[in-house]
Formats: sequence, C-alpha cells, structure tokens
Amino acid sequence: MNEKTRLWLEADRAHCWHPFTDQGAWGAGEPLVLVKGEGVWLEDSEGRRYLDGNSSIWTNIHGHNHPVLNAAVEAQLGEVAHTSFLGYANPRASELAERLVGQFPEGSLERVFFSDDGSTAVEVAVKMAIQYRQQTGEEERTGFLAFADGYHGDTMGAASLGGVKRFFDRFRQFGFPVRHVESVEVLRSLSEEEIAKTAAVVIEPLVQGVNEMRVWPEGMLRELRDWCDTVGVQLICDEVMTGFGRTGTMFACQQEEVVPDYLCLAKGLTGGYLPLAATLTTGKIYEAFLGGPEKVFHYGHSYTANQLGAAVALASLDLLEAEGFLEGVRERAGEMAGLLRELKGACPNVHEVRQRGLIAGVDLREEDGSYFAERGKAGAEVCAKAREFGLLTRPIQDTVVLMPPLVATGEEIGEMVERLERAISGTVERAAAQGR
Amino acid sequence: MNEKTRLWLEADRAHCWHPFTDQGAWGAGEPLVLVKGEGVWLEDSEGRRYLDGNSSIWTNIHGHNHPVLNAAVEAQLGEVAHTSFLGYANPRASELAERLVGQFPEGSLERVFFSDDGSTAVEVAVKMAIQYRQQTGEEERTGFLAFADGYHGDTMGAASLGGVKRFFDRFRQFGFPVRHVESVEVLRSLSEEEIAKTAAVVIEPLVQGVNEMRVWPEGMLRELRDWCDTVGVQLICDEVMTGFGRTGTMFACQQEEVVPDYLCLAKGLTGGYLPLAATLTTGKIYEAFLGGPEKVFHYGHSYTANQLGAAVALASLDLLEAEGFLEGVRERAGEMAGLLRELKGACPNVHEVRQRGLIAGVDLREEDGSYFAERGKAGAEVCAKAREFGLLTRPIQDTVVLMPPLVATGEEIGEMVERLERAISGTVERAAAQGR
Repeated sequence: MNEKTRLWLEADRAHCWHPFTDQGAWGAGEPLVLVKGEGVWLEDSEGRRYLDGNSSIWTNIHGHNHPVLNAAVEAQLGEVAHTSFLGYANPRASELAERLVGQFPEGSLERVFFSDDGSTAVEVAVKMAIQYRQQTGEEERTGFLAFADGYHGDTMGAASLGGVKRFFDRFRQFGFPVRHVESVEVLRSLSEEEIAKTAAVVIEPLVQGVNEMRVWPEGMLRELRDWCDTVGVQLICDEVMTGFGRTGTMFACQQEEVVPDYLCLAKGLTGGYLPLAATLTTGKIYEAFLGGPEKVFHYGHSYTANQLGAAVALASLDLLEAEGFLEGVRERAGEMAGLLRELKGACPNVHEVRQRGLIAGVDLREEDGSYFAERGKAGAEVCAKAREFGLLTRPIQDTVVLMPPLVATGEEIGEMVERLERAISGTVERAAAQGR
Repeated sequence: MNEKTRLWLEADRAHCWHPFTDQGAWGAGEPLVLVKGEGVWLEDSEGRRYLDGNSSIWTNIHGHNHPVLNAAVEAQLGEVAHTSFLGYANPRASELAERLVGQFPEGSLERVFFSDDGSTAVEVAVKMAIQYRQQTGEEERTGFLAFADGYHGDTMGAASLGGVKRFFDRFRQFGFPVRHVESVEVLRSLSEEEIAKTAAVVIEPLVQGVNEMRVWPEGMLRELRDWCDTVGVQLICDEVMTGFGRTGTMFACQQEEVVPDYLCLAKGLTGGYLPLAATLTTGKIYEAFLGGPEKVFHYGHSYTANQLGAAVALASLDLLEAEGFLEGVRERAGEMAGLLRELKGACPNVHEVRQRGLIAGVDLREEDGSYFAERGKAGAEVCAKAREFGLLTRPIQDTVVLMPPLVATGEEIGEMVERLERAISGTVERAAAQGR
C-alpha cells in the first residue's frame, strides 16, 4: 500500500462515517480509495482499475470524465458557480426547466421545482400534495399511500413513505402515517372513506430499486394512473433511479404513456456529476399556489438551481437526446438480457434475473430456490470477489445489482457479466460444493 | 431587454417555481437573470452590475469566480467528478473530514457524516440523536427542544424543529412533536419528567438567521451547553449560516468555547460554489453505532461526499485558514458596525442594527419604534430600491440583511452601506415624509 493510500484510509477510518455502513466491519476491511474515472472505468489509489458495474450508486449515465460534461462545468465555472434562486433567475435553470418540461406532452408537466437530492425531490412532492389539498378545499385529504418495500429517500418525510423495514422501522413513530399496499388490486379494495382521506400515492415506476430490483407487471403503472384518475388521488412518480434513460426511455413512466402529477428526479439528472434534483408538476397544481402570500410554497435550499449543476445537466441532456442514443441503450439492454440469461444457465445459484433497460438484479438463492439461511451473506461475498476481479457493484441482500453507465459498450457489458460469473462461481457455487 | 434575457425570462415565467416565492407577484415583476460573478459583484443578463450584499443567500465566502476555487474544481474534474461513498472511500472526503475535525479540540468532534444541504445535515443529527438513545438504553428520550422562531431547514424532520409559523404551521401535524422555548431560563424550569423524555436541543448559535438576525445574549450558548451537560440532553448546533468565518471565527460556537454533540454545516462549506453538507459528531456517539448490522445508521444520499464539492471545500478552507484571514473578517466586521451605526444615526426609520461578524440585520420600523402597519412592505421596497442602486440583498419582514462575502473590502462594504442608505431614504423616509 502506498503512502497516499495509507493516509487517506487512516483519515477515513478515523473521521468518516459512511452512509448505510456497518462502520465496525468497514474499519476492519480494506476499503478502496477511488481516485480517478474514465468512461466505465474507475481507478483506485493503488492504480487498480475497475468496471463501474453500479454506475457509482445508480448516478452515472455517460461514463466518468466525459469531455462534453467536463467542458460544460468548466464553461460555467468561467461565468459563475452559484447564484441564489431565491429572488433571482438564472440562465441555466431557465434552460433546464424548459428542457425537462419539453420531455412531456404539452400542457401536462409544466413546472419545475429544483432541489438537491432524491429525498428532497420527494419531500417537495409530498409537501406540495399536502398544501395543494389545503388550498383546494380538501384539507381532509392528508393521507399517503405507498407500495410495500418501496424506497423514496431518507429525510423524515421521504422516509415516511419508505417501506423497507430494516431502514425505517425505528423512525416510523416520528414520521407521518402512510399506508403501504402491495398492488393496484389492493388499492381498488380501499373504502371510499379511506380514499377521501388520501392526498397521493407514490411509486417507483417499472422497477423498485432498493427492493432487490423488483419489476412491476407490465401495464401496472397505467392501471395505477387510471385508478388515481377515477378516485381523485394524485400520483407521485419517483424516477430518481429510473430517470434519464436507465430503463431505455428517457423516463420510465413514458413506457406506459403515463404522466404523473409529480415527477421526482435526481441521480442521473447531472449525468452522475453533481447533486441536483427536480420535482416536476402540472399547471393545475401550480395554479393552486397562486393568489397571494398565504398560498406561497415555503420550501427551498440555498443551492437550489445551482448553475454548475444545471450546466452539466443540460450537457447530459444533449448527449441523451443525441440521435440513436436511447435506441443504443435499448439494444445493449437486449444484449445484457441475453448475457444474463446465459449467466443464469451457467450458475445454478442464480435463481432469477430481474431487468428493465440497463437495470438488472441477479437474485442468488440456494439451488432449490429457497433463500440462503443467512440472508445477505452470499450477495456480499460475490461483490467482494467481483472486486478482486475488477468489477465494482453492490448487493441488496442476495441480489447483486448490475447497472452499467448507459454508454457501456456491448463488450464492456460482456466483460462485466463475465467477471460477475467468475465471482459467483468462485464463491457461492464453491460454498455450495463444500456443503456450507 | 435583449433577446437572451427575454428568452430566459420567458422560460422562467413559464416553467420555473422559485423557493419561498409568491409566484404570482414574481411573474408580474421584472426578475434579474444573474449570469456572471466576479468577487463581490454579480452581473445580470443586461450587463448591469450589482454588489452581492446577501452572499448569494448566505453561501458565498470568497467572492464569485475565485481563481483558487475554480482551479480546485478544474483539477478535480480532471480526475473524477463523483464516486459513491456507499462502499468506497475517496481522497477528497478523507482530507476534508480530517480538516473539519481538526478545527475542534482533539477528542471532541471526531466524525463527519456528509450529505447535501443544511436540511439534510439537520436530518442526520436528529436521526442520529434518536437512534443513539435507542442504542444506549434510553428509548424514552425521543423528544426535541428548539428555540422559538428558529429555522433549521425545510425537509419534514428539519422543519419539525423550525419555529417560524408562516413557514411551518401548515405542516406541523405531519412532523414529530417539538417543544419550542424562548431562553435557557425556560429550559431550567422544565420538569425532570420532561427532561427524561428529551433527546436533544437544537440552536442556531450566536444569531438566529431567519428570525430577522436575532442575536443571542453573550454567554447564552455557554449556559446552554452547561444545562445540557447537567441534565444529559444532547446539543445540536446548526451552523449552516454561521459556519466558516461568517461571525469572525471559523465557527460561531468557538466564541463561547462550546463543542456541541452534533454540528450541522452546509452553505459556506464549499465557499458558495456547490451543495455539500456535513454533520460532525463525537466519538462517544459514533461508538454507540458500532457492534453489528442492527446498529447501522441507515441514511445516505447518492452524492454524499461528492468529490467536486469536497475539492472546492478544501480549497475554501485553505483560504479561510490563511494567516490573517479571520482577523481581517473581524476588522471589517468592526468597520461595518461603525458604518451601520452611522446609518442608524442618519435614518430615523432604522430602529436597530443587529450584527455578529459580517452578518447584519437592519431593522426598519416607524420612527416611534413601532412596527409598520403592513409588515414586510418596507423591507421589500427598500430591497427593490437597493437593486436599482446596484445592491442585491433580501429582507426578512422589515429587517434588511447585509451579509457581504467575507472577502469584501472595507471600501466595498462602505459602498454597500451607502447604497442601502440611499435605498432607505429613497423609500421609507420618503413614504414617511408623505405621511403614508
């Protein structure tokens, strides 16, 4: 280990506290210090190179160190990094708002409220939904519905919507009450009384990320939208993970021609460069907030509509909208599906592959399909082994995520799957053979 | 109006939704489109130049377009913009955590949890405080205390602590219960029963920003710390506004030799360039989260410890720690105090100037000291007039904020105060003379 690595790790072990991390185990392990990026590759402080199989926690779209994105940041830096959006407009925010709204049918999603991350994008939607009802004479509609095992962020409002027990149960009593449902069928069985108390329902469209990449049945989102329209409940689509081409279309909801009442965006918005989020909503909702100071939406962060973040988001959109880009994503998603089918065929412990676009979850189980006795161990071991083989990714329990940056070539995806296969056969299969 | 301005404003009016903004009035007004910055100056799309008298909503420290900060962003951009802190270390986060911890006595604040904005820095502190009690056998200590009229951010958890009625009352029922107190005296009168249910108390040390720059009595923070130690309540210092030299010392709490249990930082952390936040805490608290997966702090955002943000934060700290920098801030704060005393002498409607370091609130009232009949009108009019004179700042009700970037020279501060005086005498005094 070189001196720089040693010092960085020493400082990390002494002073950093990582998100969602068992810090005791972290301190005892040998964490990588990631210092460089280039395309789908990351490099650590020891000069080792890794394929970014997790898009740097689902954020990266165009690869690292992209000349077009770098140029956008540099150009903006030469003008101004940040000005306040509280009281002033800025050119990049104007342009970005117009471009985002332009992704949807005219007269549908028309307004953009910027914030900093996926959690705040959801907080904005939730607070708007509450205040909208207050300002349209439906004060009793204060309740929220969410899907079981969903994930919508960690701030108290966003976390209240979350259904992942191991993350949120200890804070449940501090948030507001949310009813979790399993399906549109369950929604249809709700009483009129219950519906009359409901402001909105929130969903991760097409695929629930943190819920081990659970894929919704085709048509389900469309059915949900129809149910919402019938009963007057608003629809919040949390596309923090699925947005910006990840599922093969610009936004996941477009695959079922659904326009939500609130659309929450973050992660891929800046191509994976900088924190920036946006909550899009309709003209109808916006209008309920006009009419004087008492109707104002009192919400905001200091770096809202940050010019550097908006500049790189615009450059990222340019690349995403380039002719053939999204077609290319869909093609490579098809190739990846083929490769993962082969992986499943080759590895008896691959129980199921769940995929939408370039989002995939490889579900590891006992060969008979039952869960491993110790949940999460196999997933962690496979990812540790994959790291040895130069592939970085993360497990969710025993589901290993494969989510390459959208620019990954077929060859690079093939390399990722191959390394993953070596990791699986080098750990789970071996453990199985040894009769663990 | 040039064509670019027209298009940017058109897009803004059609598609942007600004924070804390009466959008009806906004659409009818003539918002500035801020396109460039240089030192304490901002330039709009029509080529007009303005002094940034509000540090771009209290974020800017070293002026705009600073060569050292720009170079830091560019250098990092050449390595990598972002890697995930979930599972990997990164050099800039290691360095920044060490530098932040190094601002405090050894063995006091030892750990840094990164997030994205002031609200999330507070959410982290609140959730840590709750979980800490759960993991140390004090599950009944779930309550929070906060100071009346305080402001701690807008996400649901942060907003629950907030005491500003016009912002938070409509969401009060959705957050968790918080008791608001006016002073340390009130805390001392709490029953043992009440204290036994309290996890932590939160304060903006030295000065409550959004509460019209209310300045706490000298020694109050020290007394609060002593009370906390006596009764076993944890102290959360929200230095989102006061941190990074704004009050004349690196952090406000250092002026009363207080170390909190949680220190929330954001705004000035990156010198005003990029969203980045940090929650610092003690080794004792950190240790309560060790010991296995069930003790993990399940919280995190995708851009946590973003390398670009951390790189510029390190460069900003270099500048702040340069010899004589903070002394210079204190000197110019003294000059500003003198100038604002003169302003008060010259303007009968300046009721009071509240100042700590380079944070000032100029409180406008009727000449007899009573509030204006229509609260907030004079403050808004003065800031609109100041804009005409090339000074940008914001009112909080009828208190006009003057918060120059820390690099403002005495001359530049003098120019700001002069323009403010012209704005006051051009509006309030004139209205008074006309017997409004």
